[in-house]
Amino acid sequence: MAKTESTIAALSGLLSAGDTIIDGGNTNFHDDVRRAKALLTKNIHYVDAGTSGGIWGLKEGYCLMVGGEADVCKRLEPIFLTLAPAEGYLRVGDAGAGHYVKMIHNGIEYGMMQAYAEGFELMHDGSYPLDVGAIAALWNHGSVVRSWLLELTARALAEDKDLADLQGYVEDSGEGRWTVQEGIEKAVPLPVLTASLFTRFRSRQNNPFGERMLAAMRNQFGGHAVKKKA
Amino acid sequence: MAKTESTIAALSGLLSAGDTIIDGGNTNFHDDVRRAKALLTKNIHYVDAGTSGGIWGLKEGYCLMVGGEADVCKRLEPIFLTLAPAEGYLRVGDAGAGHYVKMIHNGIEYGMMQAYAEGFELMHDGSYPLDVGAIAALWNHGSVVRSWLLELTARALAEDKDLADLQGYVEDSGEGRWTVQEGIEKAVPLPVLTASLFTRFRSRQNNPFGERMLAAMRNQFGGHAVKKKA
Amino acid sequence: MAKTESTIAALSGLLSAGDTIIDGGNTNFHDDVRRAKALLTKNIHYVDAGTSGGIWGLKEGYCLMVGGEADVCKRLEPIFLTLAPAEGYLRVGDAGAGHYVKMIHNGIEYGMMQAYAEGFELMHDGSYPLDVGAIAALWNHGSVVRSWLLELTARALAEDKDLADLQGYVEDSGEGRWTVQEGIEKAVPLPVLTASLFTRFRSRQNNPFGERMLAAMRNQFGGHAVKKKA
Amino acid sequence: MAKTESTIAALSGLLSAGDTIIDGGNTNFHDDVRRAKALLTKNIHYVDAGTSGGIWGLKEGYCLMVGGEADVCKRLEPIFLTLAPAEGYLRVGDAGAGHYVKMIHNGIEYGMMQAYAEGFELMHDGSYPLDVGAIAALWNHGSVVRSWLLELTARALAEDKDLADLQGYVEDSGEGRWTVQEGIEKAVPLPVLTASLFTRFRSRQNNPFGERMLAAMRNQFGGHAVKKKA
Repeated sequence: MAKTESTIAALSGLLSAGDTIIDGGNTNFHDDVRRAKALLTKNIHYVDAGTSGGIWGLKEGYCLMVGGEADVCKRLEPIFLTLAPAEGYLRVGDAGAGHYVKMIHNGIEYGMMQAYAEGFELMHDGSYPLDVGAIAALWNHGSVVRSWLLELTARALAEDKDLADLQGYVEDSGEGRWTVQEGIEKAVPLPVLTASLFTRFRSRQNNPFGERMLAAMRNQFGGHAVKKKA
Repeated sequence: MAKTESTIAALSGLLSAGDTIIDGGNTNFHDDVRRAKALLTKNIHYVDAGTSGGIWGLKEGYCLMVGGEADVCKRLEPIFLTLAPAEGYLRVGDAGAGHYVKMIHNGIEYGMMQAYAEGFELMHDGSYPLDVGAIAALWNHGSVVRSWLLELTARALAEDKDLADLQGYVEDSGEGRWTVQEGIEKAVPLPVLTASLFTRFRSRQNNPFGERMLAAMRNQFGGHAVKKKA
Repeated sequence: MAKTESTIAALSGLLSAGDTIIDGGNTNFHDDVRRAKALLTKNIHYVDAGTSGGIWGLKEGYCLMVGGEADVCKRLEPIFLTLAPAEGYLRVGDAGAGHYVKMIHNGIEYGMMQAYAEGFELMHDGSYPLDVGAIAALWNHGSVVRSWLLELTARALAEDKDLADLQGYVEDSGEGRWTVQEGIEKAVPLPVLTASLFTRFRSRQNNPFGERMLAAMRNQFGGHAVKKKA
Repeated sequence: MAKTESTIAALSGLLSAGDTIIDGGNTNFHDDVRRAKALLTKNIHYVDAGTSGGIWGLKEGYCLMVGGEADVCKRLEPIFLTLAPAEGYLRVGDAGAGHYVKMIHNGIEYGMMQAYAEGFELMHDGSYPLDVGAIAALWNHGSVVRSWLLELTARALAEDKDLADLQGYVEDSGEGRWTVQEGIEKAVPLPVLTASLFTRFRSRQNNPFGERMLAAMRNQFGGHAVKKKA
């Protein structure tokens, strides 16, 4: 963030009235709104372009959700139409709206990933010996849960069917947190998106204090045995 | 369930050794296992075929996940290959495995639907006036969250952009509950799938006792005002 | 908030170096830290006192968790010891720490209330006709779940055993939201505290968009009937 | 379970008409109902006594929630009144009701414990260096969250303030699972009780498949680095 802030500050000193800055990263929409307002005092325009498609976008085009003044976005449309796949570009609203929509997009992405992860873990560790990679591939042919994320899952499982040497350490890059914060701000319940975020947090913890406390409480009231660290 | 049970009982009296019953519905896999075992004593085979694709399957073919004896499934393969789209058929394991995989498929489906529902509610009621139908359509072009369910969402929102006259009353048809029960049985945490199921339960409640009790407790300790029923 | 801000601004103009402001409300700890720092430039001290005990505190004394400079808190201790019940006062840390601890206290409170609410709803609507008020009273005698909140619950149910004319409309007053935001900030998973907050949000919604969308999706893929608004 | 089943079978062969078996353990209420019905054909009575209070019950008396025929329970009341603390005994309903109420009691217990655990973890790992043991003790004096579980927490933290050598490995003994299953059966949403159960499941997992799959998916679409097992 600090880098985006300083870059925009530097740029704004170099640009002329009528110029436009496009932020194509994953900026918090509150920062977009603030920057757009500040730049407008110098008659510099600001456009925020949320981008989705991952590393595959290079080849297949990026889905683009764009926020900014209508006429400015209109003028820049040829850029976006070139980068995006057919019908994969939309101006969704004023400054910040592009990153706002992208933020929620990522929140949904966390939720979808977690839905697959839970189901596949149950298949992997459940009542039948199942070839979960074959099932991921199967479901992409006609099932209700087919999706691009499931195609990638099938691909990952084809490469390494048990993901045996992988560590279940899952980063989060900010947009999921912002989505939950916005839900809290607007009093919109987001149980699934939040559970997905918390699973990532938990994946990075080692022997968290809360779980140690649960063990200690059970020991206190019930005399249940506790395990000591090795 | 009772109907499936009585139908299989009736059928088993009419069939000869070597015949096969295919259950193409959404049966609990424990029932499959029990029935397969019982039928085998008469040398009747039992195959459970989980089916996905909804009403669209009629035109596009159904994704089929099949459980049963390997040689029996092999013999019946031409049926499944005719019904399924290309690569959309797989024998996943022994009796019950087909419905087991379908059960978890539906659990995942609930989770994906809920992930979209939460994100779209936040976009609908959030910080910007957004055309959520246009965004659903947009995301199907190159974004990470593109899926068949999102295509259907775009279709629904194109028909009725605010779903204004719809009641948010959401049924569940059993497989989601069984998925959670199996997770509990196997001690596999399923936070997202369970939250999705609970959202459906809550959508069918009117003024639930638990929430009345929360209001009563707040009133007791804090003197916070309560609302009376109209 | 605005009122606290303007009051402190007004006060700070009237006070002399060495004076102390005590904020005994439910302020966000980030505001405490900012205000304490600003006041210190004028040599005015700032103490934040989190208070718990509800309307009963008037009679029984308030539990007080206090943040601020150690020597300043020491000097004011007679005030706190007078207001608090025996052993019910503690200086927990520097400026903001009092409200920080109180914030998390309230997060826990939401979680405990929700735990009771869920269990009592299940008893109320479950497999047996139960006198839930009598059970609340019972559990306060020797059970593991006895607590002051459960005493209040028993009291509320003694007054109105089915809470029949109450609306399950549950407000939240800010600290629960801040607790979840702090959890997100620190990457500490808070599934129960967050679910409790979301239940309150949901209790205030009428026919939310997300649930309408779930119904619409089920209709799209499965032809499942939807309900129209009356 | 198997042991209770065989013991009751053995006992039922030794008892005479009019005798009563009391099951004072943690039996699934469905088993109680089945056993009571079977024993009644021999005119043997069955009473299920849910017990709460932990190892402290020996000294302080056990809270007892009892199910069975009204007149049979009445006859046995002196036993229960002797074991329970004052007002700590109640016949809550017919056969199974005692263990049903105890089952939900334990579900609530999980939720309360988890509420504390989350809040204390946030205090332990949050924005201020806090003495969480002192805060646990403090809150038991006048705060809204005071409870017997919090007294035990204060005791555990007084013995070992960081629980540093403890492993956060948390068992569950069945009643929590049954509570969630009953909620699913009755379509009563139990987000907090379920999240508490899942936290225990997760505490016993090492590098779960679902989290490995999340890491693999992120790698697939975004090229995000994964960690390999050491």
